[in-house]
Amino acid sequence: MQKTVKPIRTGEEYIESLKGRDLKVYLFGELVKEPVSHPMIRPSINAVAKTYDLAVEEEELAFPKSSISGERVNRFLHIAESAEDLVLQNKMQRKLGQLTGTCFQRCVGMDAMNSLHSTTFEIDEKHGTKYHQRLLEFIKMVQHENLVIGGAMTDVKGDRSLAPSEQEDPDLFLHIVDRDDKGVYVTGAKAHQTGTINSHWMIVMPTMRLLENDKDYAIVGALPVDAPGITYIYGRQSCDTRSMEPGDIDVGNSEFGGQETMVIFDRVFIPNEMIFMDGEYEFASMLVERFTCYHRRSYVCKTGLGDVLIGAAAAIAEYNGVPKVSHIKDKIIEMTHLNESIYAAGIAASYQGHKMKSGVFLNDDMLANVCKHNVTRLPYELARLAQDVAGGILVTLPSEAEFRSAETGPLLEKYLKGKSGIEVENRMRILRLIENMTMGRNAVGYLTESMHGAGSPQAQRIQIARQMQLGYKKQLAKNLAKVKEDPEEMKENSEYFKRVFKIPEK
Amino acid sequence: MQKTVKPIRTGEEYIESLKGRDLKVYLFGELVKEPVSHPMIRPSINAVAKTYDLAVEEEELAFPKSSISGERVNRFLHIAESAEDLVLQNKMQRKLGQLTGTCFQRCVGMDAMNSLHSTTFEIDEKHGTKYHQRLLEFIKMVQHENLVIGGAMTDVKGDRSLAPSEQEDPDLFLHIVDRDDKGVYVTGAKAHQTGTINSHWMIVMPTMRLLENDKDYAIVGALPVDAPGITYIYGRQSCDTRSMEPGDIDVGNSEFGGQETMVIFDRVFIPNEMIFMDGEYEFASMLVERFTCYHRRSYVCKTGLGDVLIGAAAAIAEYNGVPKVSHIKDKIIEMTHLNESIYAAGIAASYQGHKMKSGVFLNDDMLANVCKHNVTRLPYELARLAQDVAGGILVTLPSEAEFRSAETGPLLEKYLKGKSGIEVENRMRILRLIENMTMGRNAVGYLTESMHGAGSPQAQRIQIARQMQLGYKKQLAKNLAKVKEDPEEMKENSEYFKRVFKIPEK
Amino acid sequence: MQKTVKPIRTGEEYIESLKGRDLKVYLFGELVKEPVSHPMIRPSINAVAKTYDLAVEEEELAFPKSSISGERVNRFLHIAESAEDLVLQNKMQRKLGQLTGTCFQRCVGMDAMNSLHSTTFEIDEKHGTKYHQRLLEFIKMVQHENLVIGGAMTDVKGDRSLAPSEQEDPDLFLHIVDRDDKGVYVTGAKAHQTGTINSHWMIVMPTMRLLENDKDYAIVGALPVDAPGITYIYGRQSCDTRSMEPGDIDVGNSEFGGQETMVIFDRVFIPNEMIFMDGEYEFASMLVERFTCYHRRSYVCKTGLGDVLIGAAAAIAEYNGVPKVSHIKDKIIEMTHLNESIYAAGIAASYQGHKMKSGVFLNDDMLANVCKHNVTRLPYELARLAQDVAGGILVTLPSEAEFRSAETGPLLEKYLKGKSGIEVENRMRILRLIENMTMGRNAVGYLTESMHGAGSPQAQRIQIARQMQLGYKKQLAKNLAKVKEDPEEMKENSEYFKRVFKIPEK
Amino acid sequence: MQKTVKPIRTGEEYIESLKGRDLKVYLFGELVKEPVSHPMIRPSINAVAKTYDLAVEEEELAFPKSSISGERVNRFLHIAESAEDLVLQNKMQRKLGQLTGTCFQRCVGMDAMNSLHSTTFEIDEKHGTKYHQRLLEFIKMVQHENLVIGGAMTDVKGDRSLAPSEQEDPDLFLHIVDRDDKGVYVTGAKAHQTGTINSHWMIVMPTMRLLENDKDYAIVGALPVDAPGITYIYGRQSCDTRSMEPGDIDVGNSEFGGQETMVIFDRVFIPNEMIFMDGEYEFASMLVERFTCYHRRSYVCKTGLGDVLIGAAAAIAEYNGVPKVSHIKDKIIEMTHLNESIYAAGIAASYQGHKMKSGVFLNDDMLANVCKHNVTRLPYELARLAQDVAGGILVTLPSEAEFRSAETGPLLEKYLKGKSGIEVENRMRILRLIENMTMGRNAVGYLTESMHGAGSPQAQRIQIARQMQLGYKKQLAKNLAKVKEDPEEMKENSEYFKRVFKIPEK
Repeated sequence: MQKTVKPIRTGEEYIESLKGRDLKVYLFGELVKEPVSHPMIRPSINAVAKTYDLAVEEEELAFPKSSISGERVNRFLHIAESAEDLVLQNKMQRKLGQLTGTCFQRCVGMDAMNSLHSTTFEIDEKHGTKYHQRLLEFIKMVQHENLVIGGAMTDVKGDRSLAPSEQEDPDLFLHIVDRDDKGVYVTGAKAHQTGTINSHWMIVMPTMRLLENDKDYAIVGALPVDAPGITYIYGRQSCDTRSMEPGDIDVGNSEFGGQETMVIFDRVFIPNEMIFMDGEYEFASMLVERFTCYHRRSYVCKTGLGDVLIGAAAAIAEYNGVPKVSHIKDKIIEMTHLNESIYAAGIAASYQGHKMKSGVFLNDDMLANVCKHNVTRLPYELARLAQDVAGGILVTLPSEAEFRSAETGPLLEKYLKGKSGIEVENRMRILRLIENMTMGRNAVGYLTESMHGAGSPQAQRIQIARQMQLGYKKQLAKNLAKVKEDPEEMKENSEYFKRVFKIPEK
Repeated sequence: MQKTVKPIRTGEEYIESLKGRDLKVYLFGELVKEPVSHPMIRPSINAVAKTYDLAVEEEELAFPKSSISGERVNRFLHIAESAEDLVLQNKMQRKLGQLTGTCFQRCVGMDAMNSLHSTTFEIDEKHGTKYHQRLLEFIKMVQHENLVIGGAMTDVKGDRSLAPSEQEDPDLFLHIVDRDDKGVYVTGAKAHQTGTINSHWMIVMPTMRLLENDKDYAIVGALPVDAPGITYIYGRQSCDTRSMEPGDIDVGNSEFGGQETMVIFDRVFIPNEMIFMDGEYEFASMLVERFTCYHRRSYVCKTGLGDVLIGAAAAIAEYNGVPKVSHIKDKIIEMTHLNESIYAAGIAASYQGHKMKSGVFLNDDMLANVCKHNVTRLPYELARLAQDVAGGILVTLPSEAEFRSAETGPLLEKYLKGKSGIEVENRMRILRLIENMTMGRNAVGYLTESMHGAGSPQAQRIQIARQMQLGYKKQLAKNLAKVKEDPEEMKENSEYFKRVFKIPEK
Repeated sequence: MQKTVKPIRTGEEYIESLKGRDLKVYLFGELVKEPVSHPMIRPSINAVAKTYDLAVEEEELAFPKSSISGERVNRFLHIAESAEDLVLQNKMQRKLGQLTGTCFQRCVGMDAMNSLHSTTFEIDEKHGTKYHQRLLEFIKMVQHENLVIGGAMTDVKGDRSLAPSEQEDPDLFLHIVDRDDKGVYVTGAKAHQTGTINSHWMIVMPTMRLLENDKDYAIVGALPVDAPGITYIYGRQSCDTRSMEPGDIDVGNSEFGGQETMVIFDRVFIPNEMIFMDGEYEFASMLVERFTCYHRRSYVCKTGLGDVLIGAAAAIAEYNGVPKVSHIKDKIIEMTHLNESIYAAGIAASYQGHKMKSGVFLNDDMLANVCKHNVTRLPYELARLAQDVAGGILVTLPSEAEFRSAETGPLLEKYLKGKSGIEVENRMRILRLIENMTMGRNAVGYLTESMHGAGSPQAQRIQIARQMQLGYKKQLAKNLAKVKEDPEEMKENSEYFKRVFKIPEK
Repeated sequence: MQKTVKPIRTGEEYIESLKGRDLKVYLFGELVKEPVSHPMIRPSINAVAKTYDLAVEEEELAFPKSSISGERVNRFLHIAESAEDLVLQNKMQRKLGQLTGTCFQRCVGMDAMNSLHSTTFEIDEKHGTKYHQRLLEFIKMVQHENLVIGGAMTDVKGDRSLAPSEQEDPDLFLHIVDRDDKGVYVTGAKAHQTGTINSHWMIVMPTMRLLENDKDYAIVGALPVDAPGITYIYGRQSCDTRSMEPGDIDVGNSEFGGQETMVIFDRVFIPNEMIFMDGEYEFASMLVERFTCYHRRSYVCKTGLGDVLIGAAAAIAEYNGVPKVSHIKDKIIEMTHLNESIYAAGIAASYQGHKMKSGVFLNDDMLANVCKHNVTRLPYELARLAQDVAGGILVTLPSEAEFRSAETGPLLEKYLKGKSGIEVENRMRILRLIENMTMGRNAVGYLTESMHGAGSPQAQRIQIARQMQLGYKKQLAKNLAKVKEDPEEMKENSEYFKRVFKIPEK
């Protein structure tokens, strides 16, 4: 098990804490010796490190006091004690997006712990189990040691028309394959895992509604990421190998990047005290829904990336000598409008948060889905506009090596000259950043992961449908149209409008 | 002056209070005897009446306690004492949109009083004037008597390339033409005035930034709507005369409608104690900007209309027998998503409100503009989708007279039969409501007025541009791209990001 | 039967030809004495009249030579003898849209005759019937007498989940209720009938795929619109009664308008020689598909209306004094881009036309659907942009009566003054035209009918799906991705790509 | 000079013809020995080779008879002799897009030769020069030898607010620096050059309107790509180095790719007989406008890429086991609709082509701009939808090396299993193809180059504005609104509507 001696404080200490672990990580078919020093992995570690530094620099934003441990803790480890706490998660997320221009990988863990807070409480209430207390102990420990927690939810899923227990291969969803006095053994694989190998612990959770036959799949537990039996296979992404090239221009954002792995579990042990659900299959969907409710609103982080992209577009317009041209200005305004539309939905969702039985606050579900749904669309339009503003040189620019070469360097200096006073190198840097965010390594996070993370667009539409209270709305229309003798039966299972018209608690 | 004997309480009492006034209102070239009983005007009065009834029915939402008068007052007369008050304005606005399906005409007055609260305070601070105290007296009076206040801002403007004082005809902007001991006399005209003749008092205000030569145009004052010298010319709108036809189906929404007039002032007197600005031209733009800041976010009301339209679309889908068809469901989900995107921006703007020197709260300006800007686009898409769901019958449906006729009525009953069990009349009613909101009388409020009210789209883009803090964002990009020796000078005059990352006050 | 003595030549002669017929038309619950002189109906007649005048004025465009009658005939009565003829239909349609700003109501008849040309030929081929020759005789007659032909396809449909023969009431689809030596008797009702009472003859056709049990519904025949047993119920539309008010400003487009009626058949007789299908139910879907193939591309007419709306937006920008403002210009460019995108799809569909067995040309189906599908979206955006450019005065403008009044007229002249040199009346006229096209009477044709005419959006999506040849495209992708051992079986039933890559015939 | 012995016929022969040339190409700072065998360059050569093979396989489409040489020639070398020829260019372009999934790099040369055909004719007409005849000789030669011609237009431009002759460094636009009896010497640099090093000859042309002072910049001439003094610097693009990795999966499209270089001219000689403009600066804008008129419509090629992407989306939907899910189907239909909207505009532009004085046909300019403008938007939406359909695995998929590895390969085989019967490898292949086209190497061509090639979006808007004939359209509106005494002066310089209503020539 994890043997941290004293709490991690800074990003640097965090990076130190990752070294020397016995992780089995494969990349390009080979075992990675030390992920921390691998040039393609390191940027993703730097992004997480930033979450530590921010907590040091901006306490109110990122280092709140927890009533669980009684200490100030990193907000990513904090259980939301008010709607305001939810709002502050969003604000911290935007800030970190601005500082890294990429995914900083800690939201899944934060959202997992928060959703487990209420779910374990309600399981215990029904089944007389002790999950909630165990969870609190776990939280206390990670808060105190200040660890990074990954959350592993998405199973590989196999044939999507079949339930976990119906799959030809039972391992296509993570499940208990054995158990003894001390705990359980799980086998399976989780796909699209963000930042797992940059974590200290991960929490495994089911990925969907389960039925009685799927009982063995109803397992939630925490385990160190270097637990025996885990294999990580690193995902490849657009332009990933540029991190391994010399120089720091072509990579676009040389310091920060995201990380996605497939995590394979082969009889991995979870001790009893780290188990937070074990067979209570009927709570799987509650957990998933609460997790996605938090998590869809966590995509506000993308407005921080949007800020960077808007800034890059404005900078390149200036370097190109056209910052005052009306259509250029107009495009940058449009980018801003769209970016803030995303932000607004996240903040509104958090602000309309409400207290659960366990005491934790959960944000509004409708607006969280609206936020995420905008995230599946608007960043693509921002990216398109950024490419428009950047000009064609975005995709025809020669390499940094060319720029450094004695033969071609001077030619580029001569011929890539734009407005006088602008360094060619700086122009290249901004262009490569835009490439990075719209078709390169961080486009993965800014675009495709915006599309599919926390559920693909259709998942949000389903959830919006569930809460849109058509009965209530039809009745509004019927009232105004004076429809005769055809009242709506309003059997709504959503509380959205109750929340909309609720008087905020002081 | 206004001689209300006792406070108005209900909608009915409000309607009573409007009767018998000596208003000079022209409609179709003729003087209207009694607006209250004019069938084309009455629906707009009913809409205002609903704002009284709601205050009776839902105190927390619409009848808060004012620390000015110490009484519970209608929220439309309330000065916002917290960010939460701003949020509750939005919630009330959505509710009233749901209940009326139209513009209820009181937001201008509310937003005018709130923006005057801080502006008069700051004028006094600079000039040692007494406007703020006068305003508080006025507010106390209207709160106590529970009156409707209109706000008259938009001048007719003449040649848009010239300042008020430069126009060929000096009356194209409202201005002081004379003054004596008791007060001032004003002449001019205000266009696009919403609900003025349904008000008890109106507040005149300048419509734009003024310069020294425009001093006479820098006049803010309150006056009863029946003050001598005022002429109202009623605007015509799509399908307006249907309100004057027999029957209640074809009109779509027989009870509620909006109202727009042109108001012409011919030497209208404003007594000194009702003057809140008089010549302090340099504060005109502050007033206008604060007013539009409040008012652009007030367009959240349109989400209430959106709820009605979504409900109508869902109802007609059911009447057409296709509520489960996947593309129909999908369109209704899309309508909901767009509608809530508007709502979110309003709520977020209000939530990010901050306290002004005078004590009143002002919402965030960027997000208010984002809210309004979405309002200039998304309702049009909602309307398009509603027409898609409704089917072609929306525009080929015969008249109610046909339905009531002995010859054609039975034919319609036979041939307009859809799904069994559905009354043809109810189907007609819902279709006419959709027509009303997408191309009829209330389309004016739901669409065109959504476009131009509180400033046309371009006005929001200018305001968004002012606050988008490109310097800050460019620096973010330069940091990540490691741009060398080219730091941004960040002379931002916007506080948007300060607000974004501010810790909410408890 | 129709008793025209000599061919109609001009619009005036056409209007004359409509007078004195014994039509049973109901409007507002009452029988209309003479539709030709009814102020609400007349604009729709004027629009049809324009199709005659154009043929006189522009022979090449609108008065081609027919190889059936050997004479020059109105293009609306012409059977397409080349792809070029199809293209010229589109060009004429755009021109008439420009000249009338509304629906000129003759495309259904044109498209019906063209689709019957090939369908009757193929029925005869299979069944040995004589429909094609009968149709040719009918065409010769109407070509010679130069008559207006309406096409009546859309049945009222009742419960959409049931086939015609399964409906509770058998009359919900038009069907044969009796027959004798001379012909058949039909009963039923057709909804959304465009311009029927402005026609001389109409052709009834089934509205959907039929099965054996629906044999009696498989009837196609021509009959004079004043045949005994027909009742017309006039549809009401936005702002329709403005045509009946004094003055010509408020109506927006005083001369031209559309017309939609419900047509009810009560044992209406069709003589044998006018029957073009009688029981061959398996050809119903062929007829419908060919008709919609022609007709969806006929919506190119809306680009003519788009031209008018763009012109109106440009004119009002000028009257408002802002024609050079960059965002205004940009919006007008965008309107043009969208309008031409529609046009292009229509022209491309016609150009890729091909010859049928009967000799008539049929345009490409995919592109016709793409054209119509754009028509269900882009005019709404054009309308939104036109409202944006117009300004709020669009919906607050007082009535023409006010403008003519001695009291308020001078006030409007004074206060609606914009840029110097612009007549207030002209500004009002253009504003009312924009209102007319975006929310008034002709918005019905420009928007809602654009949505639903010739099939609602989903109908186009289904048809696009049928022709998109995914097998072919999947194989393209598999080739490039070097997918192993998984070739596509390409059982495409579409010839789209064959057409795309076909060498045009000279 | 070029010394081809016998005409090139096949793709293979073409590749052979490129070998052993003395080209100075830099890539990653180093001189490339033999571009033909460089793994990163070769895919772009393969794409050009396909244009030869198609001419062999589909003569009617790609190997027309030229009346210049009297022989059948590759269509890329053909001068359009009819509107049909223009249409066939489009059809060939779509086909090649389908076959390669990338840019095949020959359109610039084709469009340059066609625009020079008419421009040289008109220069000669005015100045009595002999350019046209020289051009015909050049065309005859390249047609006979069947060579690839590149066109070099876009200068690097320096400070965009200054004319060529005003730049601090005169070389920022290509210009004549010396001349002798035999010809001229040019210096400068062309950016964003597509496929130049895959060509045999290139034609240099000015990039914008020139004034008298820019006379030395008014040079058009043909020269072999290996002429002394030319340096090529290869542009880097998203994921470009994957072509150099082992395996053929991760690259997505292993066979085909695009190519962009910067071309630097240092006193490069052009002999007199290869000069087609020399100082006639007033014809520069005519040449540029005609070139972009052809070239903007040439972007129809992107519909071929769209077909591949649609096919890939359909294939992955099937591999994911969800081909029948309604929202998936709907997204593929939408992709098709958008793709065909682009195609339609191209075809319509070509079809509305007209004959120039020199005999060559030029397509319609308005519709060409509409086509290209759609290309700057719709492929981005297609890409977004493809990423939606693909699922998150698109950006988390492990590398091919992993799949081939003895340790991780079996894990991937086990856990990436989807629907039974689907090979994991094939699923990976299709996913990588989608990545390739939406964020990888061919996204450059499908997206960013679609944005900026042949002029950025704003360039099309300017051109649309020039041709939108607002005077004509305002008059249409004024006619219908019965505007009094304010006729439009129609000084349109566009012939668009003349073309729209023109009777097509037989």
